[in-house]
Amino acid sequence: MPITANDPNRKTWIETPANTDFPIQNIPFGVFLTRDDIITIGTRIGDTAIDLGALHQLGYFEGIPLTDDIFLQDSLNDFISDGKKTWRLVRNRIADIFDAKNDQLKNNEEHRKIVLFALDEIEMQLPVTVGDYTDFYSSIEHATNVGKMFRDPENALLPNWLHIPVGYHGRSSSIIPSGIPVHRPQGQKLINGSDTPIFGPSRLVDFELEMAFITTDANQLGEPIPVDEAEDYIFGLVLFNDWSARDIQKWEYVPLGPFLAKNFASSISPWIVTLDALEPYRVDGPKPLKEQLPYLQYTGKKSFDIKLEVAIQPEKKKETVVSKTNFKYMYWNMAQQLAHHTVNGCPVNSGDMMGSGTISGPTPDSYGSMLELSWRGEKPVQLNEGGSRKFIEDNDTVIIRGYCEKEGTRIGFGEVSSQLLPVFSKK
Amino acid sequence: MPITANDPNRKTWIETPANTDFPIQNIPFGVFLTRDDIITIGTRIGDTAIDLGALHQLGYFEGIPLTDDIFLQDSLNDFISDGKKTWRLVRNRIADIFDAKNDQLKNNEEHRKIVLFALDEIEMQLPVTVGDYTDFYSSIEHATNVGKMFRDPENALLPNWLHIPVGYHGRSSSIIPSGIPVHRPQGQKLINGSDTPIFGPSRLVDFELEMAFITTDANQLGEPIPVDEAEDYIFGLVLFNDWSARDIQKWEYVPLGPFLAKNFASSISPWIVTLDALEPYRVDGPKPLKEQLPYLQYTGKKSFDIKLEVAIQPEKKKETVVSKTNFKYMYWNMAQQLAHHTVNGCPVNSGDMMGSGTISGPTPDSYGSMLELSWRGEKPVQLNEGGSRKFIEDNDTVIIRGYCEKEGTRIGFGEVSSQLLPVFSKK
Repeated sequence: MPITANDPNRKTWIETPANTDFPIQNIPFGVFLTRDDIITIGTRIGDTAIDLGALHQLGYFEGIPLTDDIFLQDSLNDFISDGKKTWRLVRNRIADIFDAKNDQLKNNEEHRKIVLFALDEIEMQLPVTVGDYTDFYSSIEHATNVGKMFRDPENALLPNWLHIPVGYHGRSSSIIPSGIPVHRPQGQKLINGSDTPIFGPSRLVDFELEMAFITTDANQLGEPIPVDEAEDYIFGLVLFNDWSARDIQKWEYVPLGPFLAKNFASSISPWIVTLDALEPYRVDGPKPLKEQLPYLQYTGKKSFDIKLEVAIQPEKKKETVVSKTNFKYMYWNMAQQLAHHTVNGCPVNSGDMMGSGTISGPTPDSYGSMLELSWRGEKPVQLNEGGSRKFIEDNDTVIIRGYCEKEGTRIGFGEVSSQLLPVFSKK
Repeated sequence: MPITANDPNRKTWIETPANTDFPIQNIPFGVFLTRDDIITIGTRIGDTAIDLGALHQLGYFEGIPLTDDIFLQDSLNDFISDGKKTWRLVRNRIADIFDAKNDQLKNNEEHRKIVLFALDEIEMQLPVTVGDYTDFYSSIEHATNVGKMFRDPENALLPNWLHIPVGYHGRSSSIIPSGIPVHRPQGQKLINGSDTPIFGPSRLVDFELEMAFITTDANQLGEPIPVDEAEDYIFGLVLFNDWSARDIQKWEYVPLGPFLAKNFASSISPWIVTLDALEPYRVDGPKPLKEQLPYLQYTGKKSFDIKLEVAIQPEKKKETVVSKTNFKYMYWNMAQQLAHHTVNGCPVNSGDMMGSGTISGPTPDSYGSMLELSWRGEKPVQLNEGGSRKFIEDNDTVIIRGYCEKEGTRIGFGEVSSQLLPVFSKK
């Protein structure tokens, strides 16, 4: 079935700002609370939010097999369970409804009033109920930087890294949407030279610039997903800030991996951009440096050219962009990650989230964490309005943005923005 | 509010086998499918399953604040969200309904037919929808054994172990109830002497004898739970077999911890025994070997005397009990685990599951995994009907059982039993 929603020549009757992340070619999915306190699934064109629950009730999805309440939900999980064919039908229909040549809704003022919202009339929610969240570690530049800093500069990559899309399980309960502030975590940490830990606020709170993909129901317990089928089970992507506390991490992570250093908060952008919308931006991935096992060998272009940046905004000051990188640098792609995750029969469900791991590029201004940008705090990062940062300070806001652009069409993710508050105290 | 359900002198009018794990003093909670294909929440006395959904509809819980459909659900999550006071009221009421002195239901044949089931008329389900699953590593004997085998026999415990209840995130999607078979997983492994992994079936599939506790909603993002309040958020416990593939684990686990070696299956017993029912079996825990940070220091008895055993049953042969141990050996208790898990503000929700980690005792016949029992395969474990095991073989069934006993009252967990099938193949 063709993805007619991607037609680059289509115009919309919705007023759309120049250079928006959300042209009619995007049509992402999210969940929001409306001015009437109703929770609904929606999409966005330019700066207009569209209530898909209302559109469906008004009959605009006639002919597409959807249950009556599929969009009147507080998560996208059930819609995602409907599968790729349905997502595509719905996206194509939305493109049609808002096409400049279609005046059915355009000329129906009553319907427009029910369906369309300004962004300041809605409140974005978490788009899915995340059942399981896995984080990978798939940027060779990031893994190499970490290895150089903490292990052996001459053998920065661990022996398994070029063979395995290394990943680990994360915590779903602390995944939050853009805009929700995060408290500086407390925990155990070792002060240099001591062998007895102290307890207190983390002094090394960091962001990790990542992307994450959201899956649909993929397999039964026991059944692997072949690498070249894996993308059928990917609904779409979000921007992801995997907040990290480096001092807590260093003391706790051997031998079972990071735990409290990561699970205090994981912030995602609220609009899921579908894999369908990203089709025009496929590129070749990096050439493997070692031969990969057959279950990881794929055909075709499975990397995506997505420009990414991180900015730090101190309280009441202007932001400074501290890193610019690209999703295409990932050594292991999403299909490989999903094939690996399921090769032992581990079941993947609708709404599961899988993070890329920190996305660092080849140059020092393209690193995806303060740990790397300030090289463990040795090279503070200068801010535009004065001051500098080794790590994130109280009341700083961290903003990650991302978009694709090609031949005049831009498909963006908006942003994930979250402020670091001081340590939690009970009022 | 007194836990009248625990009265050791209470008798029931339900016929109950001698030495049952489920006397009227137990009253565990589970989810089952009835002979009429209805899913309901239930409890069990002796070998009789009790449909709590039906009991509630018939008015037997009058006076307790419960929503009409609280037991007509496919998981206990909403009931668990109602909190400790409600669990206690319901358990006390159930004890009352089935008390030998109460003939209200006993004498109502019509009601009895609706409410009571023989065990072969029902099919046990997963008792909760697990949002997040965490596994700890809290047995000092197990951590020491693993350290001796794979690291330094002289410094078997890692530097953080006596300070941190070490834990890591696991996969919820592969948690299954007793009775569901598990396929031998495939994955990457390194053959001794090679630096290039091969792909194939794990040759070192192991059980891990664990217990796990199920939580209720405990805290908001950012807010820690004090150690002496932590038990208020524990609903109850199950037996837990944390299936493990040792060869896959060895190659993948550095630096982010076990992943595919663990997430192919995690089997639990279907009846959740409440913390209330275990009150009479509290004991002192092991004395700390190093001073613990204040947030981990607790008052009172927070360990539980629960006798545990594991049996291996080869196909068409009798079982052999290969280990006997006790939950009371755990170095870190559940309250410490929960206080640690939330000290950074990580939110805990209803239905979250937290595993103890492998429970090994001090003697070689009390170790909680084949890895330790056969000491890496160096000392095969003899089976009663001939043959021996280094690890688990295809078609073996692994059975974990557990119970408390004191002054003639026995509170048991039943069992978690699961068969290891050969590698999955698409028919």
